[in-house]
Amino acid sequence: MELIRWGIISLLLILTIETTSSSPSVIKMVPDKETPIAADGDSGRRRGLDLYCEGWRFTVETNDAGSWTQVPEKCVDFVKEYLAGDWYRLESEAVADSAVAFAKTAVGVSGNGKNAWVFDIDETLLSNVPYYADHGFGWVDLAVGPALSASLRLFNELQDLGFTVFLLTGRSEFQRNVTEINLRFAGFNNWERLILRGDGDQGKLASVYKSEKRKEIEDEGYIIRGNSGDQWSDLTGFAVAERSFKLPNPLYYIA
Amino acid sequence: MELIRWGIISLLLILTIETTSSSPSVIKMVPDKETPIAADGDSGRRRGLDLYCEGWRFTVETNDAGSWTQVPEKCVDFVKEYLAGDWYRLESEAVADSAVAFAKTAVGVSGNGKNAWVFDIDETLLSNVPYYADHGFGWVDLAVGPALSASLRLFNELQDLGFTVFLLTGRSEFQRNVTEINLRFAGFNNWERLILRGDGDQGKLASVYKSEKRKEIEDEGYIIRGNSGDQWSDLTGFAVAERSFKLPNPLYYIA
Repeated sequence: MELIRWGIISLLLILTIETTSSSPSVIKMVPDKETPIAADGDSGRRRGLDLYCEGWRFTVETNDAGSWTQVPEKCVDFVKEYLAGDWYRLESEAVADSAVAFAKTAVGVSGNGKNAWVFDIDETLLSNVPYYADHGFGWVDLAVGPALSASLRLFNELQDLGFTVFLLTGRSEFQRNVTEINLRFAGFNNWERLILRGDGDQGKLASVYKSEKRKEIEDEGYIIRGNSGDQWSDLTGFAVAERSFKLPNPLYYIA
Repeated sequence: MELIRWGIISLLLILTIETTSSSPSVIKMVPDKETPIAADGDSGRRRGLDLYCEGWRFTVETNDAGSWTQVPEKCVDFVKEYLAGDWYRLESEAVADSAVAFAKTAVGVSGNGKNAWVFDIDETLLSNVPYYADHGFGWVDLAVGPALSASLRLFNELQDLGFTVFLLTGRSEFQRNVTEINLRFAGFNNWERLILRGDGDQGKLASVYKSEKRKEIEDEGYIIRGNSGDQWSDLTGFAVAERSFKLPNPLYYIA
């Protein structure tokens, strides 16, 4: 099983990803023959390529890198290790812990029943990593993406705390059914509204489309306390949440 | 020398840091007796505490953690390793590389001589890490903080590209002389203006004070293409730069 998982991620990582305003798409193959990650010596755990790739990942996760289009060839093994091991999972848990800690304080501030939280879906609630390689970016039609376990925990804790949960995704209206099926399959329930791109939203930058939809939520009287997403375009623009929670994603960038 | 450096950083890290609107201050000691970082085995470089601390650092650097006040006791050794080895340096280099790449494209867009770049100073241009322990936060009076080498390179490249460079720091006017001396000592020259907190800026949140000052720069006709800082409060608010560049800082948080 572990071998299969690594194989899938290997396949995934030799695909080069191009960002568009709505979703990433596969454009070409990159040869997978980079230098292996430097072996650990007796002293110092991080060296050479590892450090280079840690630096690359820092720029990606802080948005310093801006619109990046592919994992550097020499960091493919690094990203593979990141995704397949516990690292990605534990980093997502740390983000959920920050969000829960904030949510508990936010509830104390106001009990008017209008506390809202906005979640992105792909790589935020649902993980598509195991499916990219097999199905490219048509994976969502399968409706079997597993939950990111840390986000499922946060999702449930927020509902226990009385938050109204909105799901705001770059997916389009024609994917509504399959998206709902996948969310329920993965354990998500009782969201207030699932917002997908309608006809008028096509072609907009994600940051613009998502800001507009957050504004509509605010105009209904909700206070968007928190917002969780794996892309900075999930979190920035206008009508931003009181606190935004960036989840890791070293695989692709959406503007 | 290396031992001395580690010793200093060890001392630094057992200090707990409290954030204020203007600068951090030392408030109390934390016992330095946490569990050591898990040793590496034959398989898997990152495990146990290392992964916990990577997760913590992710939340700190993305601002998911919000206003945090101290390095978790069990991550003190982790942060020590981060600062003392090549990791911090190489991560800063990666940020500078992103900034230079963007600056080159920005120059192509406009040659009107009004391209500006705003730099924070502490932990952005100057590194105070070696001095915290000896002098607490009175270190700046010594005027001997070394340059962050990656930022010095960026600083010089930007001037070669024709950018007007502004320095915008949370330090106060009474520190102007010592700050200028330190900057020159570390190799920085030819900045357009050094902006420090005046009487009317005392007590403001850093994000508000810095936004106001950026707005003044814009009102003079400058286009702030880039902004480099180690705190999110250096980069966010209003009059934000076209692109912002977050440098790592796992030591303290300023709102």
